[in-house]
Amino acid sequence: MPHIDLPVGVPGIRALMMYRPETALPINHLVEVLLQGPSTLTKGEREMIATRVSTLNECNYCSSIHGAIARAHLGEDAPLVAMVAHDPDSAPVSARLKALLHIAGKVQKDGRSVTAKDVAAARAQGATDLEIHDTVLIAAVFCMANRYVDGLATWAPDDPAIYDRAGAFRAANGYLVAAP
Amino acid sequence: MPHIDLPVGVPGIRALMMYRPETALPINHLVEVLLQGPSTLTKGEREMIATRVSTLNECNYCSSIHGAIARAHLGEDAPLVAMVAHDPDSAPVSARLKALLHIAGKVQKDGRSVTAKDVAAARAQGATDLEIHDTVLIAAVFCMANRYVDGLATWAPDDPAIYDRAGAFRAANGYLVAAP
Repeated sequence: MPHIDLPVGVPGIRALMMYRPETALPINHLVEVLLQGPSTLTKGEREMIATRVSTLNECNYCSSIHGAIARAHLGEDAPLVAMVAHDPDSAPVSARLKALLHIAGKVQKDGRSVTAKDVAAARAQGATDLEIHDTVLIAAVFCMANRYVDGLATWAPDDPAIYDRAGAFRAANGYLVAAP
Repeated sequence: MPHIDLPVGVPGIRALMMYRPETALPINHLVEVLLQGPSTLTKGEREMIATRVSTLNECNYCSSIHGAIARAHLGEDAPLVAMVAHDPDSAPVSARLKALLHIAGKVQKDGRSVTAKDVAAARAQGATDLEIHDTVLIAAVFCMANRYVDGLATWAPDDPAIYDRAGAFRAANGYLVAAP
């Protein structure tokens, strides 16, 4: 049961956003820029970074919904998402994305654990400064979202079909449009 | 040295905000609502929650600047800030603020560690649902900011006078106005 009086039947961060629209707006705006805005990282790659961090934080709602959004973006490559979430080093993704996922995993633990060597390894695989910046910020944003969602004990549905449906909607419409 | 090519001589998150204005805007908007917007928590109380979480995350820049902002808000009660940052249970603050700081400390570790008992204890001291919500979100936002600032190895000045000056400016002007 949620720790505060939230709208019933609304899952995860969506219930918190209905409860406090003043903070919902900038959170959605931030996530829209990072995950849907112009970038040399694909939307699927960015959602996989979000899913990986949410999996490390063991946030059931966030890892489920962002995994579903990533699968919606990736289409026929959707089986990749679970591999990246649980064992990115063994997943068949580019060396550049692996190096960025490694940085994201460091950020999840502690920002200070990211080393110049980690960053040089990403650059050696072709990652740009902006991609490194956005990877660190996506990881940091999900360390926020995961704590927000779980710190107030929001409801996470069990039915995978709910995430698939919401994930397809979010992938198509972004974060600034309310779900029907 | 920062991990990416940031403006020289600009400290902490301010350098990152110059580097990526598209994400700076919603981050500043979010922090303005939470730390400066209408609330039954004083601005000093909210900045102390931010300072406590940044201290737990050992983020030198964030704990220094938000400590300075909290001191600017608290005026003659400024000595409280260091006590709250390092040992809130022994600090001479209200039982309500202590209970909220306890929740913030739990969020810093892992959102799932916040229990119904922690929340009931805050309510028993008069905390409202909205105060509990905002405490969890402030703690979560600083888990983001601390990782963002340290994950990219931004510069933190050593001179305390720099933080005092910037803290007084920020307390007076909020988060949506660029520092001179």
